[in-house]
Amino acid sequence: MLELRVQTQARTQLLDITTLVNERLSGSDAQLVVVFVPHTTAGVVLQAAGANATAVAADVEAALERIVVESWPWKHTSEGDRNPWSHVRAVLTGSSLTIPLERGALALGNLQALFLCEFDGPRERTIRLTLI
Amino acid sequence: MLELRVQTQARTQLLDITTLVNERLSGSDAQLVVVFVPHTTAGVVLQAAGANATAVAADVEAALERIVVESWPWKHTSEGDRNPWSHVRAVLTGSSLTIPLERGALALGNLQALFLCEFDGPRERTIRLTLI
Amino acid sequence: MLELRVQTQARTQLLDITTLVNERLSGSDAQLVVVFVPHTTAGVVLQAAGANATAVAADVEAALERIVVESWPWKHTSEGDRNPWSHVRAVLTGSSLTIPLERGALALGNLQALFLCEFDGPRERTIRLTLI
Repeated sequence: MLELRVQTQARTQLLDITTLVNERLSGSDAQLVVVFVPHTTAGVVLQAAGANATAVAADVEAALERIVVESWPWKHTSEGDRNPWSHVRAVLTGSSLTIPLERGALALGNLQALFLCEFDGPRERTIRLTLI
Repeated sequence: MLELRVQTQARTQLLDITTLVNERLSGSDAQLVVVFVPHTTAGVVLQAAGANATAVAADVEAALERIVVESWPWKHTSEGDRNPWSHVRAVLTGSSLTIPLERGALALGNLQALFLCEFDGPRERTIRLTLI
Repeated sequence: MLELRVQTQARTQLLDITTLVNERLSGSDAQLVVVFVPHTTAGVVLQAAGANATAVAADVEAALERIVVESWPWKHTSEGDRNPWSHVRAVLTGSSLTIPLERGALALGNLQALFLCEFDGPRERTIRLTLI
């Protein structure tokens, strides 16, 4: 199992980790990688790469903040710094993603990139890669 | 890696691809298949098969259109034909699904079928199958 | 393929199955497990373990009931006991999860536990485990 660490910069943030993951996969002849996030307020998704990446990432961040509403009644608020909504946003994105590889790199669509989804940042996050 | 192509018929559509995928898996002695969609406005899910399939698929389509609201403010609208909400709907369904196999076919529950989720159709979509 | 059965106790319930799954994995030297739910109104997610587990699980249950609203118009209502919203909640959580193993146990984060998500209980549910 390979392990990556990244630093997020905002409370809610889609952070493109495609290049970082490809660097760690380089030279592998595996056919698949499992990208696993060992956190309960973060996730992993595939979304838009290239020219539209920044706008789409911002739209996904804003939409998840609208779908899971912070003014709802919450139970997990016993400590001042709890963000119960961040757990629900992580449920919606998911914390494990299995992606095909080709020639030692993620075999994504032309318009796809791999994102860590931060819902309770900024903080350091871990990403675990398992090759198959 | 096997590749399938399907044509969707509507803007939002759950398209049953169970039979199509089983045809391509036929004869395989693999124990798992990874179903991967290399698109950012489409997904894959398991949902109802049989007599309830049409009604449940229509309910899932309508619910995703209600959960991700097109009248929200969006950033990814620089071109007239952009559908930023379709990216968020794809995030909610996910683009990779790992499914057990038995005797060269998807080992689904009695009431389960495999669906491609179209959120920005109609168009041709690709599905990649990797056997483990 | 290993098969577990669990009994859920409520209509909507996140049920911690970490210990149950670890018992079945015990002694395995596999590097990954695919946790698969052969149902269309149930799912699997990783969420909070430990002291916060009960509050977070209750928050996730309540949030999914708010995100997918039972008073929306639904098509899958031909029989009196249908719960069309439970299918949509299952779509949002997902029905297959691939998790790394270490020394014959789920290699989760310190604060992560594995939950079966019941959206149409109480009833008996099946969980299929495939080792890689």
